[in-house]
Amino acid sequence: MTQKDPQPGSLKTTFIGLGVMGFPMAGHLAARHEVTVFNRSADKASRWTEHYAGQRAETPAEAVKDADMVFCCLGADEDVEAILTGEGGVLNAMKSGSLLCDHTTTSAELARRMGVAATEAGVRFVDAPVSGGQKGAEDGALTIMMGGAEKDCDELLPVLECYAKRARRLGEVGAGQLTKMVNQICIAGLVQGLAEGIQFAKKAGLDPAEVVDVISKGAAQSWQMENRYQTMIEGQYDFGFAVEWMRKDLNYALAEGRRNKSHLPVTALVDQFYSEVESLGGARWDTSSLLARLENLSRTS
Amino acid sequence: MTQKDPQPGSLKTTFIGLGVMGFPMAGHLAARHEVTVFNRSADKASRWTEHYAGQRAETPAEAVKDADMVFCCLGADEDVEAILTGEGGVLNAMKSGSLLCDHTTTSAELARRMGVAATEAGVRFVDAPVSGGQKGAEDGALTIMMGGAEKDCDELLPVLECYAKRARRLGEVGAGQLTKMVNQICIAGLVQGLAEGIQFAKKAGLDPAEVVDVISKGAAQSWQMENRYQTMIEGQYDFGFAVEWMRKDLNYALAEGRRNKSHLPVTALVDQFYSEVESLGGARWDTSSLLARLENLSRTS
Amino acid sequence: MTQKDPQPGSLKTTFIGLGVMGFPMAGHLAARHEVTVFNRSADKASRWTEHYAGQRAETPAEAVKDADMVFCCLGADEDVEAILTGEGGVLNAMKSGSLLCDHTTTSAELARRMGVAATEAGVRFVDAPVSGGQKGAEDGALTIMMGGAEKDCDELLPVLECYAKRARRLGEVGAGQLTKMVNQICIAGLVQGLAEGIQFAKKAGLDPAEVVDVISKGAAQSWQMENRYQTMIEGQYDFGFAVEWMRKDLNYALAEGRRNKSHLPVTALVDQFYSEVESLGGARWDTSSLLARLENLSRTS
Amino acid sequence: MTQKDPQPGSLKTTFIGLGVMGFPMAGHLAARHEVTVFNRSADKASRWTEHYAGQRAETPAEAVKDADMVFCCLGADEDVEAILTGEGGVLNAMKSGSLLCDHTTTSAELARRMGVAATEAGVRFVDAPVSGGQKGAEDGALTIMMGGAEKDCDELLPVLECYAKRARRLGEVGAGQLTKMVNQICIAGLVQGLAEGIQFAKKAGLDPAEVVDVISKGAAQSWQMENRYQTMIEGQYDFGFAVEWMRKDLNYALAEGRRNKSHLPVTALVDQFYSEVESLGGARWDTSSLLARLENLSRTS
Ligand SMILES: NC(=O)C1=CN([C@@H]2O[C@H](COP(=O)(O)OP(=O)(O)OC[C@H]3O[C@@H](n4cnc5c(N)ncnc54)[C@H](OP(=O)(O)O)[C@@H]3O)[C@@H](O)[C@H]2O)C=CC1
Ligand SMILES: NC(=O)C1=CN([C@@H]2O[C@H](COP(=O)(O)OP(=O)(O)OC[C@H]3O[C@@H](n4cnc5c(N)ncnc54)[C@H](OP(=O)(O)O)[C@@H]3O)[C@@H](O)[C@H]2O)C=CC1
Ligand SMILES: NC(=O)C1=CN([C@@H]2O[C@H](COP(=O)(O)OP(=O)(O)OC[C@H]3O[C@@H](n4cnc5c(N)ncnc54)[C@H](OP(=O)(O)O)[C@@H]3O)[C@@H](O)[C@H]2O)C=CC1
Repeated sequence: MTQKDPQPGSLKTTFIGLGVMGFPMAGHLAARHEVTVFNRSADKASRWTEHYAGQRAETPAEAVKDADMVFCCLGADEDVEAILTGEGGVLNAMKSGSLLCDHTTTSAELARRMGVAATEAGVRFVDAPVSGGQKGAEDGALTIMMGGAEKDCDELLPVLECYAKRARRLGEVGAGQLTKMVNQICIAGLVQGLAEGIQFAKKAGLDPAEVVDVISKGAAQSWQMENRYQTMIEGQYDFGFAVEWMRKDLNYALAEGRRNKSHLPVTALVDQFYSEVESLGGARWDTSSLLARLENLSRTS
Repeated sequence: MTQKDPQPGSLKTTFIGLGVMGFPMAGHLAARHEVTVFNRSADKASRWTEHYAGQRAETPAEAVKDADMVFCCLGADEDVEAILTGEGGVLNAMKSGSLLCDHTTTSAELARRMGVAATEAGVRFVDAPVSGGQKGAEDGALTIMMGGAEKDCDELLPVLECYAKRARRLGEVGAGQLTKMVNQICIAGLVQGLAEGIQFAKKAGLDPAEVVDVISKGAAQSWQMENRYQTMIEGQYDFGFAVEWMRKDLNYALAEGRRNKSHLPVTALVDQFYSEVESLGGARWDTSSLLARLENLSRTS
Repeated sequence: MTQKDPQPGSLKTTFIGLGVMGFPMAGHLAARHEVTVFNRSADKASRWTEHYAGQRAETPAEAVKDADMVFCCLGADEDVEAILTGEGGVLNAMKSGSLLCDHTTTSAELARRMGVAATEAGVRFVDAPVSGGQKGAEDGALTIMMGGAEKDCDELLPVLECYAKRARRLGEVGAGQLTKMVNQICIAGLVQGLAEGIQFAKKAGLDPAEVVDVISKGAAQSWQMENRYQTMIEGQYDFGFAVEWMRKDLNYALAEGRRNKSHLPVTALVDQFYSEVESLGGARWDTSSLLARLENLSRTS
Repeated sequence: MTQKDPQPGSLKTTFIGLGVMGFPMAGHLAARHEVTVFNRSADKASRWTEHYAGQRAETPAEAVKDADMVFCCLGADEDVEAILTGEGGVLNAMKSGSLLCDHTTTSAELARRMGVAATEAGVRFVDAPVSGGQKGAEDGALTIMMGGAEKDCDELLPVLECYAKRARRLGEVGAGQLTKMVNQICIAGLVQGLAEGIQFAKKAGLDPAEVVDVISKGAAQSWQMENRYQTMIEGQYDFGFAVEWMRKDLNYALAEGRRNKSHLPVTALVDQFYSEVESLGGARWDTSSLLARLENLSRTS
């Protein structure tokens, strides 16, 4: 599609990284703002312009040069660093005073380093990792955790509403990433407990779906229990939030815990169990596949 | 209070064990049925008859002799065994064909053994452990997991509605206890994950309440997160479900897992962490005190 | 063979339980003392009298009736209880003032209960679990940990030298079993560490035998490293101390830890890993098969 | 002291980093070779020249400029990188074809990177971490694990004999560090098992020294048990290999495990337990202080 006439209040924006998450996020953005996209693999950028009203650029630098706000949603630390501060990097190409919002889940250290680099380049930086998964991105119902100057986060808020049902500032640059780490730490122990419970239910000869039906109204309830029990019972893991993404995030959390002197025994242990899931071929399986680890062992018996 | 005239459909019932849970449960029961209570320590029985319309008996055998249905809510395996099959035990004193419903959290083995003993005594047996805590008992909003013959569970259902908002049969005798074990297994890993997360949030310099506010709408959400984060942040543990009760239940789960060949690595580990909470003086603290263990270590630093 | 003429200092003894351990132990005993054996499965008793100079009895009671000292080496708690205090049990058949020495690895509770039962029967009791494995039993080079009255242990010492290279009293009845528990607790963490190390060496592309050669002279050295690295590298586990025996012993240790308020996080965790080895078919494999658990996961990758 | 006349076969060598380990190592070296030392804090270098026959240099570059072989024993990755490739770095100052042997425990990645940098600078590189502790260094009885070209390691061997009782090449550059990681992985689980065992012995009312006496001859034996049980029983940890060093090494091992797809559940867990020891004030305590963690919890009870 071609660009529509700008709506009142519409900003010039750029979205870099049209992966599972970025593609639909940029799409929601385009409903209210002018969007120029860039993706390393050109095909995703072409596909995006077929679906949504917006333009594509050939290089990151070109993509950002007129933007008021730039969003990116890439892979890991090294990817963000490459795009922002590498050769032909985005920061030096951005307009003075413009705002860069990074949706990638990275280390807090990387966020702080990018924050400093942005300041040096005369640009404002907010780290803003998301949760809600592919479905949250597609439905425009993500949760966003921001770290940055209050003024910058306030300015972002109405724009983020294009794809977020919740967005909140948690502190200075890096605080968004730290909050995302808390999220992943909570999930690690929780999912392992759930996996042990469902496995026990099966081994005990109970109907695990009936068990979940009765216990999911009380103290054992969790989002994971309600949204994953069925696929876990069916041994279906080809969807959702990938184990290798989870390990990336837990790696950041464990390294940060080393620095801030947290004690993360079960997080560290479950991260190793995820390494065993990867050895079972599950690098791209949903995080609920901790059950597959427990059951693989049983299958052979 | 003295006994009211029987309502239509009212049954002759007995309630044994007027502890934190049994006291209010028996009270709710008395609103619709004739209730005779027994408690080992006589004072609780007196206090109960002051609050509720019902009678007290001097011995368990006397308490049950005319009852259509007998309920008990005691401590652990050995207590149930003592009351049911010990000297002057309840099973031999019950009317032929009457129904015994045990709300104590016990091993499934004990439930099965009591089921057999009941049959020999011409009595029907249902194991029916509960969840929902003191508040659930007081509000009449417990969840009940039943194991027993279908007919027996069906017969119990309308009576249990006096204090349950949910009650479900999961299988033959023992299935209620097995389901409760699944519940506790799920909680163990979940609460440890939550404790690690909140501790990390504090160490990272975040406001943990704000963090919970933002992450509790997504994949990390749990009943424990929503209902315990505030007291955890305040280091308040003098309430709720006691660590020593939890260890009793996990002990049953781990022993059953040994039998049914489940793998429970994190459950076993967290049970040991609870032993460390006990060493900190926390045998009666709420299960969320896993955070106290992580923080005690830090406090001293 | 038939009984030889009694040597000077020779005692009338009985050995019950001619399994992997008891068979050669009773054989060594017969070199210096009169021995009557009993084994539940008669064939082992016959085979034993073919190999060694001694007699066999048809029942445990008959086997012990003239003995000064009775030794047994059975399976687990329930086996010892059955043989000692069950129908036709040994304690009531023993001569007043005679001495019973139990080599089975049991709970300390069982040992104490047997101690009390022995006293009631006018018999002395010493718990004396062993370590050293099948080879130690065959070579007469076991280590024996005794719990009992000092006088009783002193009296046993010269007799135990038939098959022990070390025997020591550690305290009152039960202390032998408690010491054996310490032994197994130490082994659990140690073997898991060793398994992780060897697995890492292979994954890192090192020659694990060369690695062990160089590190086994320093702070990482252990009996397990020196005596198991080769079979571990070869994935050979059909020998040694069986995983299911280990789990029995760890079960006793974990239950005792619950009582004496020990904290055993890694012991509890490794016990669960052993449950995973069992699911891989390894109930009878040597305890070093924790490596098989780590590698099974990798094999599939 | 001043330099002695060169002995036959004596080489011109340099030793950089005169810490707990390097100080005595360089001393042993000086007994057979010409040694020039450099230490960041000048006082240690002065103290060294008072004790041993050798010279000191003011800068690393000056220290190495005439050397045939250069040894260093520094802190962590970033320290080695700074000294070797930073401003005024050693590699560019060394003679073409000379040999650099790094005794620091680092990541294998750093070793490989330094190997490449050395080649670019026309210098040969061998990573050669040691084990044996302060005492091993003082007694000249270290174990050394080498990674490098065969020829280079062969050339080093006779020189390393100044302070090593064992030295072995395990593979190409990096293999020394990988071997050291195996060593630390084995120790982590082993020491935790030992700590749990000794704690259990005390809680069980046994005399832990007597227990160790009897079990240290069998399958539970380890260097750690024999060399640490006494100090552990006495709660003495102000010596030995510091917890914070151990965590550095485990951090390298866990990161490498992530790369080579090892599964290190107990290593990861014990690393977190060490973080708890640090919170107790034990960053500089010996690694056997895992027992202090278990006991701190009990002390308060
Ligand atoms: N998927 C999920 O459920 C969730 C993901 N996240 C986080 O969001 C981020 C994105 O995830 P997701 O969209 O699933 O990932 P994808 O792998 O689907 O997409 C990654 C995107 O980043 C681009 N990219 C990666 N590295 C580079 C680089 N070095 N240079 C240029 N472009 C690069 C990719 O380009 P190309 O197309 O060329 O490969 C692609 O557009 C991750 O940090 C993830 O942890 C957070 C919550 C949920
Ligand atoms: N508290 C909670 O939040 C929850 C508890 N549960 C389970 O419910 C059960 C009861 O818990 P709770 O009410 O809190 O416990 P309490 O300790 O408050 O009450 C236990 C009751 O059992 C009686 N009792 C115990 N042992 C014996 C015995 N040997 N002979 C006679 N009477 C005995 C006690 O009598 P006396 O007054 O004489 O001591 C008391 O009435 C437990 O199994 C617990 O695990 C389940 C869910 C939540
Ligand atoms: N194997 C080893 O390396 C070590 C073993 N141990 C301990 O030593 C003990 C014996 O081990 P091991 O010899 O290997 O075991 P085996 O299974 O080889 O032998 C067990 C013996 O006990 C007898 N037995 C078991 N239960 C009963 C019963 N209820 N009534 C009568 N007889 C019974 C068996 O009789 P039957 O022949 O009829 O089955 C058999 O003679 C165990 O407690 C074990 O934990 C200790 C250190 C090392």
